[in-house]
Amino acid sequence: MALRRTLAPLFRTQLTIACRQQQHRAQSVAILGAPFFKGQKRRGVEHGPKAIRDAGLVGRLSSLDYPVHDFGDLNFQDLDKDEHFMHVPFPRTVGRANQLLSSAVSRAVGAGHTCVMLGGDHSLAIGSVEGHAQQCPNLCLIWVDAHADINTPLTSPSGNLHGQSVAFLLKELRDKMPDIPGFSWMKPFLSSTDLVYIGLRDVDPGEHYILKNLGIQYFTMRDIDRLGIHRVMEVTFDHLLARKQRPIHLSFDIDAFDPSLAPATGTPVNGGLTYREGIYITEEIHNTGLLSVMDLVEVNPALGSNREAVEATAGLAVDVIASSLGQTREGAHVAFQEIPSPTADTEQLRL
Amino acid sequence: MALRRTLAPLFRTQLTIACRQQQHRAQSVAILGAPFFKGQKRRGVEHGPKAIRDAGLVGRLSSLDYPVHDFGDLNFQDLDKDEHFMHVPFPRTVGRANQLLSSAVSRAVGAGHTCVMLGGDHSLAIGSVEGHAQQCPNLCLIWVDAHADINTPLTSPSGNLHGQSVAFLLKELRDKMPDIPGFSWMKPFLSSTDLVYIGLRDVDPGEHYILKNLGIQYFTMRDIDRLGIHRVMEVTFDHLLARKQRPIHLSFDIDAFDPSLAPATGTPVNGGLTYREGIYITEEIHNTGLLSVMDLVEVNPALGSNREAVEATAGLAVDVIASSLGQTREGAHVAFQEIPSPTADTEQLRL
Amino acid sequence: MALRRTLAPLFRTQLTIACRQQQHRAQSVAILGAPFFKGQKRRGVEHGPKAIRDAGLVGRLSSLDYPVHDFGDLNFQDLDKDEHFMHVPFPRTVGRANQLLSSAVSRAVGAGHTCVMLGGDHSLAIGSVEGHAQQCPNLCLIWVDAHADINTPLTSPSGNLHGQSVAFLLKELRDKMPDIPGFSWMKPFLSSTDLVYIGLRDVDPGEHYILKNLGIQYFTMRDIDRLGIHRVMEVTFDHLLARKQRPIHLSFDIDAFDPSLAPATGTPVNGGLTYREGIYITEEIHNTGLLSVMDLVEVNPALGSNREAVEATAGLAVDVIASSLGQTREGAHVAFQEIPSPTADTEQLRL
Repeated sequence: MALRRTLAPLFRTQLTIACRQQQHRAQSVAILGAPFFKGQKRRGVEHGPKAIRDAGLVGRLSSLDYPVHDFGDLNFQDLDKDEHFMHVPFPRTVGRANQLLSSAVSRAVGAGHTCVMLGGDHSLAIGSVEGHAQQCPNLCLIWVDAHADINTPLTSPSGNLHGQSVAFLLKELRDKMPDIPGFSWMKPFLSSTDLVYIGLRDVDPGEHYILKNLGIQYFTMRDIDRLGIHRVMEVTFDHLLARKQRPIHLSFDIDAFDPSLAPATGTPVNGGLTYREGIYITEEIHNTGLLSVMDLVEVNPALGSNREAVEATAGLAVDVIASSLGQTREGAHVAFQEIPSPTADTEQLRL
Repeated sequence: MALRRTLAPLFRTQLTIACRQQQHRAQSVAILGAPFFKGQKRRGVEHGPKAIRDAGLVGRLSSLDYPVHDFGDLNFQDLDKDEHFMHVPFPRTVGRANQLLSSAVSRAVGAGHTCVMLGGDHSLAIGSVEGHAQQCPNLCLIWVDAHADINTPLTSPSGNLHGQSVAFLLKELRDKMPDIPGFSWMKPFLSSTDLVYIGLRDVDPGEHYILKNLGIQYFTMRDIDRLGIHRVMEVTFDHLLARKQRPIHLSFDIDAFDPSLAPATGTPVNGGLTYREGIYITEEIHNTGLLSVMDLVEVNPALGSNREAVEATAGLAVDVIASSLGQTREGAHVAFQEIPSPTADTEQLRL
Repeated sequence: MALRRTLAPLFRTQLTIACRQQQHRAQSVAILGAPFFKGQKRRGVEHGPKAIRDAGLVGRLSSLDYPVHDFGDLNFQDLDKDEHFMHVPFPRTVGRANQLLSSAVSRAVGAGHTCVMLGGDHSLAIGSVEGHAQQCPNLCLIWVDAHADINTPLTSPSGNLHGQSVAFLLKELRDKMPDIPGFSWMKPFLSSTDLVYIGLRDVDPGEHYILKNLGIQYFTMRDIDRLGIHRVMEVTFDHLLARKQRPIHLSFDIDAFDPSLAPATGTPVNGGLTYREGIYITEEIHNTGLLSVMDLVEVNPALGSNREAVEATAGLAVDVIASSLGQTREGAHVAFQEIPSPTADTEQLRL
């Protein structure tokens, strides 16, 4: 509340029309499914969009009084010839998929929608953020994840591109990235000051060095333990929004949550966000009025140990998305004008 | 500690004798079972009292050095003719049950007991609080629940009376309540300033409007996330007790807890109280020395997915009640006079 | 960080060589298995060392760049004749086992290792702390546990020695302890100001009296709820280290954790530490640079309801030990010198 009041006068007018609409409650929501898994090695994450829809996404968002446009799933294509680059598998396939996703996100934002991208693995954030930036070059990025996903091909222990997404986006890492085939369509565009991480707890040595070296603002689970999620969000908004209002890109990896809550995911790490912390983060982001695009990635229905585990994970994804778009625990998501009084008609109902 | 010291001088002497006794550690505890379910539609909650007793309630309270009087279960009667009022089912049955409960609670409090009412559904709070108020008209009410239960028949989406209990109690809603058959024996008596909610996270639109319109003090799970349970309790006592010491009615719905802890209940909502938060609330209430009546409702043994789930829920109910009545995590519930020293007799035990 | 900076100048030089090395990152780690159960009555805890090793302890510590010396299990012997002393079972067997353990710990610390003792039941802390004190008489003790383990034979409800370990250590209780057979080899050496408890929630009446009477600094779960684990650790270090840097003995009972996290243990108590709180405690202890010996006790593989429960408990023990020895959630446990740049060779990898 206080934040919104403080920041409102700072609103800059040079945003594009599409971006300016994001400062108020979204008029409509566009859902884009991205059934893609080749940024990592565990099959099943391509079924994430279906699992999240089956958990009731569209109905939930509709109950928030949004017009919801579900644009279905993007149609990604496998490339016949896509050999490893160094130890990085599927570079061209991942590059091509992100190029396609980038266009779709750009069109959705350009049409005035708040865009919800359903992954698929987290390599998809490359295209999602890039497409968002085409419309809103002044965006900022909040990355909620157990992992920093900021390896370069030269620091990555696994080679998987879903652990390198952020490195593709950052201007400061341009010289550190080799020319990976499949990505010639894009250039890094984000400054390291435009990014905040929340939830980190499994950071590779090279990633740790990059985070420190670039002075990136990040909050590990230890930081959340120290500061509390309330203060973490205050500092996050201070860092990203204090000097200028701007569209927010929220890239939410379901593995930010504790594995007891989100078991159906590829790289779970103990000691994650509680349900309430995750919802608090998204409530706060909604309250800025600035959410423009969000990714919800890494729900992998093939990895839950049973049906309950998968449904819990997908249901959690729906809660995160609904909360990001205005569902509140306080119950104010639909307006009420007055307390109704009994009338003569009501009284006739007495027997 | 600080609180007790601060408030002690403010103690007012106009309480009735029954109520005054509540300012000190209770001399005795009365248990009233209320096997009733017609305030909602899910069968099984009428077996709540048995489940809580089977989980060891009496033994646990006895170990706190209380004389425990278990008055058994109230004998509620179904009415032959009880048609809906508007979309509200069983109005006369619910009204009659609460009338009976009200008398029983009033008698127990009048006899100097601290009264523990075991539900049954939360519509029973109407009679429990009303009976308490007969003896202690200056009581205050702490409502720990995922839901506000403050719908009127005209705002309630479901019609179920267990979601409307508080609306029957509040003077400020008198004009908003139709004349529901079965409730002519009572009048609203509570002011909206005499009530604090803790744990809300599923609030209907009409309820949200009422909470805001009447300026009721409430803490949603989001508020607990922001403030911490420690501060929430401080503000609760400030709000209810700072100007006058008075008896506390604690109405505790087991669904205030997270469903992972209390699965056997009718309307679970994700993101609830932790075990420690629930115990903290009740420890703090005990520490005021003012607890006079408590409800423990909505344990439904028919709804757990297995026996462990039911036993966990009922065991949690016992922990909540025991903690409200003085069981502490610090271990001071039984006095010790000195550290015993070995004697010549002890030494003879050496071989 | 701040703490380390503040305390560094206070370092006293009278520590023995073995102890002084503890102020810096340990050069090497010694693992001592202590397969012992006669401090309590539930069989299975003697298999704790195997369960913890099977969960990957050595590999995990090696990945932190420590030379790890696993000295295997101590060979405890049952005594033919060991009758009860009062209601205390196996006094001589427990005494003898602790004498053996004391020597082993003393040798390991004397050789410059940071020592990790794997229990076994918590009576083993008697020998572990005593052996540590032989080398480092100025040690302080952090006891993380649901229980205070400070009964004397005259206050203990059960008689089990695993609930009396601390009473053997404290000089202030010397007059309150009878001459228990099997313990003539040791004398109490610790002051009650050298000890802090964290995690208490099941404290016997006599224990509560002792804690209060001796003015021991302790944090129950209620205190953690009030203060937060961050503040608890600040006060702990203030209490133990503000006036002098000294070696830390960490005695960690796995039952400090909530039973949902550590089910395979003999005396679980609801409402325990979260995973994150436990890791926070050990990260902070590591950050002092002063950890010298740690016990990890009461993992009982016979008590989990299934294999997952046992593996979860043992895996948690590994996480606690690794975190105590420098594994961090921030990922800095291995140094990195610079962000690697692509070279001509890298570029040749482009196809």
